[in-house]
Amino acid sequence: MSVPGEHMAAEVAEQPAVYDRILTTGLPAIRQVAEEISARGPRFVALTARGTSDNAAYYAKYLIEVLLGLPVGLTSMSTRTLYEAELNYADVLCVTVSQSGGSDDLLQFTEAARKGGAITLAVTNAADSPVNNASEFSLDVLAGKEIAQPATKSYTAELLTLYLLVDALRKGDASDAKDLPALAAGLLDRHDEITALAQRYRFTTNLMIVSRGYSAATAHEAAWKIMETSYLQAHAYSSADLMHGPIALVDSMSPVIALAPEGVTGTAMHDTIDRLRERDADLTVVGTQELVETAARGFSLPAGVSEQVSPMLEILPFQWLAYEISMQRGLNPDAPRALAKVTSTR
Amino acid sequence: MSVPGEHMAAEVAEQPAVYDRILTTGLPAIRQVAEEISARGPRFVALTARGTSDNAAYYAKYLIEVLLGLPVGLTSMSTRTLYEAELNYADVLCVTVSQSGGSDDLLQFTEAARKGGAITLAVTNAADSPVNNASEFSLDVLAGKEIAQPATKSYTAELLTLYLLVDALRKGDASDAKDLPALAAGLLDRHDEITALAQRYRFTTNLMIVSRGYSAATAHEAAWKIMETSYLQAHAYSSADLMHGPIALVDSMSPVIALAPEGVTGTAMHDTIDRLRERDADLTVVGTQELVETAARGFSLPAGVSEQVSPMLEILPFQWLAYEISMQRGLNPDAPRALAKVTSTR
Repeated sequence: MSVPGEHMAAEVAEQPAVYDRILTTGLPAIRQVAEEISARGPRFVALTARGTSDNAAYYAKYLIEVLLGLPVGLTSMSTRTLYEAELNYADVLCVTVSQSGGSDDLLQFTEAARKGGAITLAVTNAADSPVNNASEFSLDVLAGKEIAQPATKSYTAELLTLYLLVDALRKGDASDAKDLPALAAGLLDRHDEITALAQRYRFTTNLMIVSRGYSAATAHEAAWKIMETSYLQAHAYSSADLMHGPIALVDSMSPVIALAPEGVTGTAMHDTIDRLRERDADLTVVGTQELVETAARGFSLPAGVSEQVSPMLEILPFQWLAYEISMQRGLNPDAPRALAKVTSTR
Repeated sequence: MSVPGEHMAAEVAEQPAVYDRILTTGLPAIRQVAEEISARGPRFVALTARGTSDNAAYYAKYLIEVLLGLPVGLTSMSTRTLYEAELNYADVLCVTVSQSGGSDDLLQFTEAARKGGAITLAVTNAADSPVNNASEFSLDVLAGKEIAQPATKSYTAELLTLYLLVDALRKGDASDAKDLPALAAGLLDRHDEITALAQRYRFTTNLMIVSRGYSAATAHEAAWKIMETSYLQAHAYSSADLMHGPIALVDSMSPVIALAPEGVTGTAMHDTIDRLRERDADLTVVGTQELVETAARGFSLPAGVSEQVSPMLEILPFQWLAYEISMQRGLNPDAPRALAKVTSTR
């Protein structure tokens, strides 16, 4: 019989090795695909994904807006599966991001986009999936088989693959990512800090995670992970959206984790952190050493990491947190109730 | 001194008159703008908005994907305000949706998009706002001055303006919308039904609202409204996203409202409703008379309304619900704590 959480724990721990595999074995294929796509001159990007992969797509959307300056959208597959929209997708790069590559809605949308003239690219953890076969180009994220329901290593593998793709599209040298395997290993070694932190959340029914910019995707993925493993109302907000409504929810009984890594994004979070303090939020900071030192509780991130690369590191303590809260509640994070690994939706 | 909730109640009640105003006074300007934009042949649409207007933009995104078949995205303004992205936006229609038209981030993004070659259109409730002045085209949503913090009539006015714009872009005759004023008045008259329903939510700390397709925007806006007026963890999910994670949260202590209007979207919700019943959710249905009759609690929507138009009606009972929960909790829905009407974010 399996031990609760053993698969999730093993898969979280594998991530430095997955990063190394992508940076060595995976990179040539990514560059080749980027070159062929560049030659086609895409002018718009459409990203198609669900669940955890949708959070990876959200990261990629931000990356594409900033680094390529192209208009980019996350598609609503049901426009095709329910309404049979005819897509005018000439000059559109349509990227379908999926762990399994097996969901029928992803497949149908990918097929319709290709029929509508899009350049189609599958980014999956399943090289022979239906979505791969339906796409003109494919990239395997090389995470290896994932057994636990909560996606961890397939998420970060999608992030790195998408990062390297965008970097290659703008003729980058991927140097910002070269230390990822070592930095990831260093973060994952600090499991004990997270075990201690998780105790504080033993009985909460809700949790708010706030960030922005590149790290907004991390906040969404972290909330999603904690929600599915630990059955609590964990929700993510960009700091800008927070001020437009959810800040009204915050009081001294509100656990909030502010994610503020080094760089422009993190600096822009300082006002948000001040506002959360004014509202007496129960605040934990995940961010720079300097910022963590000003907070009652926190988890420091390594210095000198570029903002584009940071999401591949900052999610790691949240994965341990999701695992720990679930375990401390006597649940099994490997198999959340009511979920299936490949989700069938129309 | 003002009576708690008086402004919100008055503004909710004004919506039939606002619909009538847009359909009569507003329509010629919308058609004129649509004609000029059509002549420019946009191939991609980018929507820029925050808060409640972001929910209106989400509705428009779906409408554009289905009815125009164009790739469309919701922009992240911080790509510009924090990272100064250079935008390559030739052939892009960039629509900025805002109640006030006054937020600096909206303004900066609109200016950058225009500089990058976009066709810019402001859709606001403030004809002389900075965003209007920065845009090539402008549409006034004609909702009139809004005093309550929670946007109600400006939201539905944005929906109808965006609907009529998309309808005009595909040379429609707007006939599906002609009964909106009368249908809206009929729904708002049923305030008593909502007063009774709101009692059930007097003490809940959370609420889930589920829908999909065109109505996913309604679910988001409804959750947002209830969250900001009543300080409870109200969250929206598309039925497809629900199955990828949040379904694990649901048990007999989970209040869930399923929004399933007439048509393809509503029919696709039947499986979701079955799954929620299996999980013993505390289920309320807002939808067709037929579906409501199968449920323990519900609110029926008028028959014969097209799916594209339904969001302008189905939000109305949720606005009353947000108002009622807030009032029954002894709060003042006109002025939620910690919020400002014009939100300044970078």
